[in-house]
Amino acid sequence: GTVKVLCGPKNVERTLTSCGVFLLQMGWGDLGAFGEPSKETPNLDQMAAEGMLFLDFYTASPLCSPSRAALLTGRLPVRNGFYTTNGHARNAYTPQDIVGGIPDSELLLPELLKKAGYTNKIIGKWHLGHRPQFHPLKHGFDEWFGSPNCHFGPYDSTERPNIPIYRDWEMVGRYYEDFKIDLKTGEANLTQLYLQEALDFISKQQASQQPFFLYWAIDATHAPVYASKQFLGTSQRGLYGDAVREIDASVGKILQHLHQLGISENTFVFFTSDNGAALISAPRQGGSNGPFLCGKQTTFEGGMREPAIAWWPGHIPAGGVSHQLGSVMDLFSTSLSLAGLQPPSDRQIDGIDLLPVILQGKLIDRPIFYYRGNELMAVRAGLYKAHYWTWSNSWEEHSKGIDFCPGQSVPGVTTHTQEEHTHLPLLFHLGRDPGEKYPLSFASEEYQQAVEHISGLVQQHKATLVPGQPQLNVCDQAVMNWAPPGCEKLGKCLKAPESDPKKCSWPH
Amino acid sequence: GTVKVLCGPKNVERTLTSCGVFLLQMGWGDLGAFGEPSKETPNLDQMAAEGMLFLDFYTASPLCSPSRAALLTGRLPVRNGFYTTNGHARNAYTPQDIVGGIPDSELLLPELLKKAGYTNKIIGKWHLGHRPQFHPLKHGFDEWFGSPNCHFGPYDSTERPNIPIYRDWEMVGRYYEDFKIDLKTGEANLTQLYLQEALDFISKQQASQQPFFLYWAIDATHAPVYASKQFLGTSQRGLYGDAVREIDASVGKILQHLHQLGISENTFVFFTSDNGAALISAPRQGGSNGPFLCGKQTTFEGGMREPAIAWWPGHIPAGGVSHQLGSVMDLFSTSLSLAGLQPPSDRQIDGIDLLPVILQGKLIDRPIFYYRGNELMAVRAGLYKAHYWTWSNSWEEHSKGIDFCPGQSVPGVTTHTQEEHTHLPLLFHLGRDPGEKYPLSFASEEYQQAVEHISGLVQQHKATLVPGQPQLNVCDQAVMNWAPPGCEKLGKCLKAPESDPKKCSWPH
Repeated sequence: GTVKVLCGPKNVERTLTSCGVFLLQMGWGDLGAFGEPSKETPNLDQMAAEGMLFLDFYTASPLCSPSRAALLTGRLPVRNGFYTTNGHARNAYTPQDIVGGIPDSELLLPELLKKAGYTNKIIGKWHLGHRPQFHPLKHGFDEWFGSPNCHFGPYDSTERPNIPIYRDWEMVGRYYEDFKIDLKTGEANLTQLYLQEALDFISKQQASQQPFFLYWAIDATHAPVYASKQFLGTSQRGLYGDAVREIDASVGKILQHLHQLGISENTFVFFTSDNGAALISAPRQGGSNGPFLCGKQTTFEGGMREPAIAWWPGHIPAGGVSHQLGSVMDLFSTSLSLAGLQPPSDRQIDGIDLLPVILQGKLIDRPIFYYRGNELMAVRAGLYKAHYWTWSNSWEEHSKGIDFCPGQSVPGVTTHTQEEHTHLPLLFHLGRDPGEKYPLSFASEEYQQAVEHISGLVQQHKATLVPGQPQLNVCDQAVMNWAPPGCEKLGKCLKAPESDPKKCSWPH
Repeated sequence: GTVKVLCGPKNVERTLTSCGVFLLQMGWGDLGAFGEPSKETPNLDQMAAEGMLFLDFYTASPLCSPSRAALLTGRLPVRNGFYTTNGHARNAYTPQDIVGGIPDSELLLPELLKKAGYTNKIIGKWHLGHRPQFHPLKHGFDEWFGSPNCHFGPYDSTERPNIPIYRDWEMVGRYYEDFKIDLKTGEANLTQLYLQEALDFISKQQASQQPFFLYWAIDATHAPVYASKQFLGTSQRGLYGDAVREIDASVGKILQHLHQLGISENTFVFFTSDNGAALISAPRQGGSNGPFLCGKQTTFEGGMREPAIAWWPGHIPAGGVSHQLGSVMDLFSTSLSLAGLQPPSDRQIDGIDLLPVILQGKLIDRPIFYYRGNELMAVRAGLYKAHYWTWSNSWEEHSKGIDFCPGQSVPGVTTHTQEEHTHLPLLFHLGRDPGEKYPLSFASEEYQQAVEHISGLVQQHKATLVPGQPQLNVCDQAVMNWAPPGCEKLGKCLKAPESDPKKCSWPH
């Protein structure tokens, strides 16, 4: 998924009024500006040309839900509870039988921005839990148009309910039934609906002179991939490319809208993704991670390094490029900073304020932690990345054709068993070897110095880590979207089965 | 290698006076504009921003000598003789024991441009044969500063001679002895020498108002990679990146020089490479082919798809992008067209005139032929690529650690035995699958239509093919650079051994 954040304060010297995040599922290599060989993203490339390109920007997890929870809390999933302990180093998310969700104890970005007078809207996939207590309007958002879960399966309304679409507190229909996705042709007009919703919200906020935070987290590039009729067949890249083109055009329209309303210089916009391209869905439904290793679900660069663009005309020097190690969690701290707010001081915040990077070209020294479930798989500091554990997926899954690294195989690195390297981490220099193919020699001085440095960071990190209560352990078919609020009016309530809580099964 | 061509006519309406080609050994993914994640090529990126980026541009061979012969003759190596028949589908080049070279019967671009009053200069590696009859000044060039062969090995002046550097007709020294390359630190000031040579030549031509063709074919990114002291350690990418940065800075200085002399609008410049990045030399000495499969020596995209930029301020619309299937051989036809000349009509020319593409945005339908030796391995038409033969390298070589596809392995595609697919070619859609990982189903209608079309092109191509006399079959230690012209004055003549002609051994 990809996200756009638009935000800012109404009464701060820099007269920023709004901010937005685009969060979409795309890979690092899916944008022309990042070297996609079809070069079909003129609007995003233009956004980069007018703003700042982040080349070393990361998500907080190789999977969607934990990344989104991290973006909105500024905290690693292992702290905010968006992880599982059901197996070692497993990725987990929020399918519709998940019992957990975002804990009330977590402070979300919109909750904080509200105190500064912001109106907060989420358009698209929430993914932080779909049970009533996890509803985005209970966690700081004022408006919502979108779904609580991914739009994939079961495509059946009785055996398993189709995912509902909410407008604010209540559902207004379900995917497939009321919001069509033609799985054969890939046609769906959802991105156009989500685009219009964004344009209308921005117009309304501008008319009432209210600052806003818009979180545009649509899912057209998530399998099953879809695009509107006018975009189908327009890409060299097939259906996935059609979806990318529609997103690109939509981002262009939103930015143009800000220009036309005269608020582009008051609106900070950030574009990024919640995980690497899902290579398992390639080639028809999967994107590109450029020169990087593997994809979604893995802690190799392809799984967590993301396209990222900051845009704020008149403030960010056009055509800038930054090698700052950045994270989606930084959008939390940066947005608060833009709004003139302080991050909470009663808890560990992992995000940093990127404004000195964006406005003054500074580089802030900070590591990147690559988690899979509650296991710290790898750490990047500077150009060095140390792997403490390696795993692509199990032989069992791989033998079924589930491949997170299609066409790629680095002996001892893309392992199909979970391999521990805690005492002798695999070390890569991501400048000389962005593809993680050539581990440095254990015997080299370079290895010893870099590993000593990174191990110090790991010790520090682990010593202060207080894991949150894991939210993604228990699944129960009774909690699925059988009868969401608003279903009565629509005649769309389904009968829930008996409660039967079980440990969720996370194979990856 | 990478090449820059600068050329044009003196008396044509468009007042173009000069043209140049930069030809360097770099991969598609080595430039920031093509998605190299360190983004360290500001000058080449600026060249692209001011000119036109070619995203689907190919060399004529996955190895240096044949590509260079193809560029200068506009003809496939199998026609101009730059291939071997010593083994099936083997890459061959011109080491210093090669007996052959560019035949007199071939018409080279500078020979033709001379008729239009051009002064032609080659700076850097010639590589079309080093024996007297193959000297570049016998094939149309007026000036030369550089070497006849690659600068690698033997690094010893007596057992095997070090490669000479020529100024015009005579040698002025040898690599390592007189033109230092420190193999330990990677330091050499050769790129600075070659840069100065280019600047001086351009100044001289401008002063005398003579049109020129400059072929700047330096080899800093060819193993053993080198860079000048001021560039060492400046890249995130290590020594290879240092060399790229120096080349990038040099290209910037040459373009700036054209601007300062007021002739940038009269000078057509093209930047490209003679083969994909040599992954075998990675990570210290090898570059990046971005998202493509394998590298130098192979007929996968990584071996032959090249970075390419056309630059001609005031004529080429800034920031253009083209998906024209292009070839280094087109630089022959395009340069002739710029000079108001016709290509020879007495022989098959494979290059096409790209001016309609560059100036009017046209797309010309034409296939790309991927040869290895005298075997047609693959053909691209539109977005489809059919492989008639697949081979990376032999198991025997692979077991010695020679790997043209490090970290990559696509079953049935990156084969270590030569696999014939003549009757049922492997077909890829390069838009949906630029990495050549997902062969299309033989049973699909898409497959049948595309293969039928491509097979027609192949039949047509083979029916009219007249292979040249193969030049790269015979090797003889007696022909090495023992006593090049000019060695007497320098006291640098070495005694040649007895002649002992043998079949050259080409393992790949």
